[in-house]
Amino acid sequence: MADGDSYAPSHSLEKQFEAFRTELEESGTLRERIRSVVSEIESTTRVMYATLLLVHQSRSISELLEKAKSQIVVLKEKYKQLAQILGGCSGQYYRYYGDWRSETQSVVSILTFIHWLETGSLLEHKEAEEKLGLNNSEFGLDVEDYLIGVCFMSNELPRYVVNQVTAGDYDCPRKVLKFLTDLHAAFRLLNLRNDFLRKKFDGMKYDLRKVEEVYYDVKIRGLTPNGESVGDKGIEG
Amino acid sequence: MADGDSYAPSHSLEKQFEAFRTELEESGTLRERIRSVVSEIESTTRVMYATLLLVHQSRSISELLEKAKSQIVVLKEKYKQLAQILGGCSGQYYRYYGDWRSETQSVVSILTFIHWLETGSLLEHKEAEEKLGLNNSEFGLDVEDYLIGVCFMSNELPRYVVNQVTAGDYDCPRKVLKFLTDLHAAFRLLNLRNDFLRKKFDGMKYDLRKVEEVYYDVKIRGLTPNGESVGDKGIEG
Amino acid sequence: MADGDSYAPSHSLEKQFEAFRTELEESGTLRERIRSVVSEIESTTRVMYATLLLVHQSRSISELLEKAKSQIVVLKEKYKQLAQILGGCSGQYYRYYGDWRSETQSVVSILTFIHWLETGSLLEHKEAEEKLGLNNSEFGLDVEDYLIGVCFMSNELPRYVVNQVTAGDYDCPRKVLKFLTDLHAAFRLLNLRNDFLRKKFDGMKYDLRKVEEVYYDVKIRGLTPNGESVGDKGIEG
Amino acid sequence: MADGDSYAPSHSLEKQFEAFRTELEESGTLRERIRSVVSEIESTTRVMYATLLLVHQSRSISELLEKAKSQIVVLKEKYKQLAQILGGCSGQYYRYYGDWRSETQSVVSILTFIHWLETGSLLEHKEAEEKLGLNNSEFGLDVEDYLIGVCFMSNELPRYVVNQVTAGDYDCPRKVLKFLTDLHAAFRLLNLRNDFLRKKFDGMKYDLRKVEEVYYDVKIRGLTPNGESVGDKGIEG
Repeated sequence: MADGDSYAPSHSLEKQFEAFRTELEESGTLRERIRSVVSEIESTTRVMYATLLLVHQSRSISELLEKAKSQIVVLKEKYKQLAQILGGCSGQYYRYYGDWRSETQSVVSILTFIHWLETGSLLEHKEAEEKLGLNNSEFGLDVEDYLIGVCFMSNELPRYVVNQVTAGDYDCPRKVLKFLTDLHAAFRLLNLRNDFLRKKFDGMKYDLRKVEEVYYDVKIRGLTPNGESVGDKGIEG
Repeated sequence: MADGDSYAPSHSLEKQFEAFRTELEESGTLRERIRSVVSEIESTTRVMYATLLLVHQSRSISELLEKAKSQIVVLKEKYKQLAQILGGCSGQYYRYYGDWRSETQSVVSILTFIHWLETGSLLEHKEAEEKLGLNNSEFGLDVEDYLIGVCFMSNELPRYVVNQVTAGDYDCPRKVLKFLTDLHAAFRLLNLRNDFLRKKFDGMKYDLRKVEEVYYDVKIRGLTPNGESVGDKGIEG
Repeated sequence: MADGDSYAPSHSLEKQFEAFRTELEESGTLRERIRSVVSEIESTTRVMYATLLLVHQSRSISELLEKAKSQIVVLKEKYKQLAQILGGCSGQYYRYYGDWRSETQSVVSILTFIHWLETGSLLEHKEAEEKLGLNNSEFGLDVEDYLIGVCFMSNELPRYVVNQVTAGDYDCPRKVLKFLTDLHAAFRLLNLRNDFLRKKFDGMKYDLRKVEEVYYDVKIRGLTPNGESVGDKGIEG
Repeated sequence: MADGDSYAPSHSLEKQFEAFRTELEESGTLRERIRSVVSEIESTTRVMYATLLLVHQSRSISELLEKAKSQIVVLKEKYKQLAQILGGCSGQYYRYYGDWRSETQSVVSILTFIHWLETGSLLEHKEAEEKLGLNNSEFGLDVEDYLIGVCFMSNELPRYVVNQVTAGDYDCPRKVLKFLTDLHAAFRLLNLRNDFLRKKFDGMKYDLRKVEEVYYDVKIRGLTPNGESVGDKGIEG
């Protein structure tokens, strides 16, 4: 070891650590600003979800959809704020990314559920980005997060089908089953690693199974619209 | 829900998911390439560390240092490869960042230990970046990782002091104590959040305490070079 | 303790550990080769399973079966490769065995499902071994793995029955119920320890129960081919 | 699906499962026999270890060593029994292997500790096999288990050194330190995977550090035999 007296005097050390402190505090502040916006995204999605849940108790859903959709502009504004906060440190998008991933997945599950209720089809990735004002180049919607959100959305469908049938919509199971079957087949095209997305996708088959059982129930009772009567309609176990 | 028949035919779904598959596979491949480079970094550092450990059994360390330093170019080359791999996807540095963080911290702990053995001073952040060919703009050495690596390095010092004294270098404790005291004070300037870095820093005080005890041992026995005997002068607290 | 100077000089120690390194690296390499083959088995079964899942949406299954069966030769080839890799270290079959157990169980579940779809009967252990080119003496199909695979296969049956009835095959539940009842009774002959196999077998009763319920549904509605109406004949418990 | 009536009658199923029952019961019985022998190995090692622990309170260890060594023949006999039990199912050594691995590791740690106490050197793998009557071809001592046992043995050394110094043997730390340093260096030659062995080896450095500190203590007080007096021997903090 060199002679202890020869080494860098501690004020140079201090000078260096002063710089570290500044840098650490900047990233700390940045993180706090991100967190506050993310918590607003989180509460907005909670409100939207609470509204959407009412579809399980009602058949006239256009009103609910309007109410839920009115919040999308709020979300868009929040993501704009996030982009602005990160504007200063370009290229560091993924550095702080983990701080809003799961919230974004919830946002996607709600947007896709709304879109599906309206059109019966899957909201595409690009469409979701547009709704949230995300452009893939700088500050986009990660494909994995989009797909995870879609899986979350599929978890809503079994309950929806059950309640729709209860409310007397006997054709719903067929439509949902077709949608879920196509979606499940599409996911099968992906060569998923053993990660979170794969786990979520594996869960989708339970949604599929449950919807199949509901379709089975209406079918075996001849309750389907094209109503071929099978067996004794009178019997409801 | 809209009429099931109206929704996007599954081939459009397929088309979209084909695109996802491509994108997921690309990032998967990228990740594998990163992993293989990182594992080379890891094995290189293991070799360097195994060499450095011999300082605990020897006083003529210049040879060991040369041997260890000869590996730095290898590390530099590996980081260059990482930068090239990520060159394609600029701005996504932090996306895959987690895959080499802990290995980089080990690298820093070894570089700073080597530098300290040579000069008795702390290898600065910029110097570490230069040695590894990292330039902060695009692909740099994260300050937190640098600081965590420095904490790991300090963990080596108590053992080093003990073995140096055993080998008869009674002045070593004083030098190490001064270095560690300055370093500990410098860290105190940082306003650390409750994270991994803070935990590592908290551990540093045990290194400091141990070195103080060794210094006390040599001091109380008047073994320090300027050999003032305890009896008459006593220990400066 | 004997005098420290008398003990084996470290070069003898080195010599010994060099030998260990060689041995450990050999088994490490062997393990890697096994893993790569096993991962190919795993992806092949995933493809087969994805194909078979379509039986839940279709009644004309002969095509799906052909497509799935075309992969069996691939599996056979992979097991041949495993046997060759282990050829060098005879008698060490069970040493590396754990590396492909669960994959083999999946393989069995698929083979037995295919066979059942074709014949309505259980693919026997010996038949499974033949299909995979495994001969019990050297490199065989462990009975426990075969039985666990059979349990996995039974988990597919409830869903199959539900979808077949939905598709209008009202005789399916009776056939499946007879098969599952026999299978469950056969398992009861085994004196199972409290291990994984027992746990899987315990799960089989839920498959049985579900199929019974579907059979009940078609029966109570007089949907069975020989169509005796519930009203007059009642259900045979 | 083929006509349910065409499929194999359940008595063929029964016949097959009868065969499984026999096979499962045989392996079950085999396992029980193994377990009972292993539990005897375990209790024998416990007795030996209890005897050896007394070295921490005594300096005349030859008697303890004789007492402990007298049990080795018992262990040898037990391993012979294990080999006989497995004789029937040759090549299935590794199938039941997991049932006595950890016990064998303890056996190795005790044999190596005894040998080290007698000779100050490491009991070689081959020597250990001879003592236990294991011949590598059919029924041997796995290298990993040997190495893990050696790691366990090293865990005893710090305590041993502390108590030897307390009992007045001031040369012990030097000898142990040389042994442990050589052993640690030898292990470094191995390219260990991230498994149990690596974890055990990583622990060895704490043994090394502790022994270094004890050596430091005796050295700084000039208590080493070649007794160069350093500082004031009178002071014992």
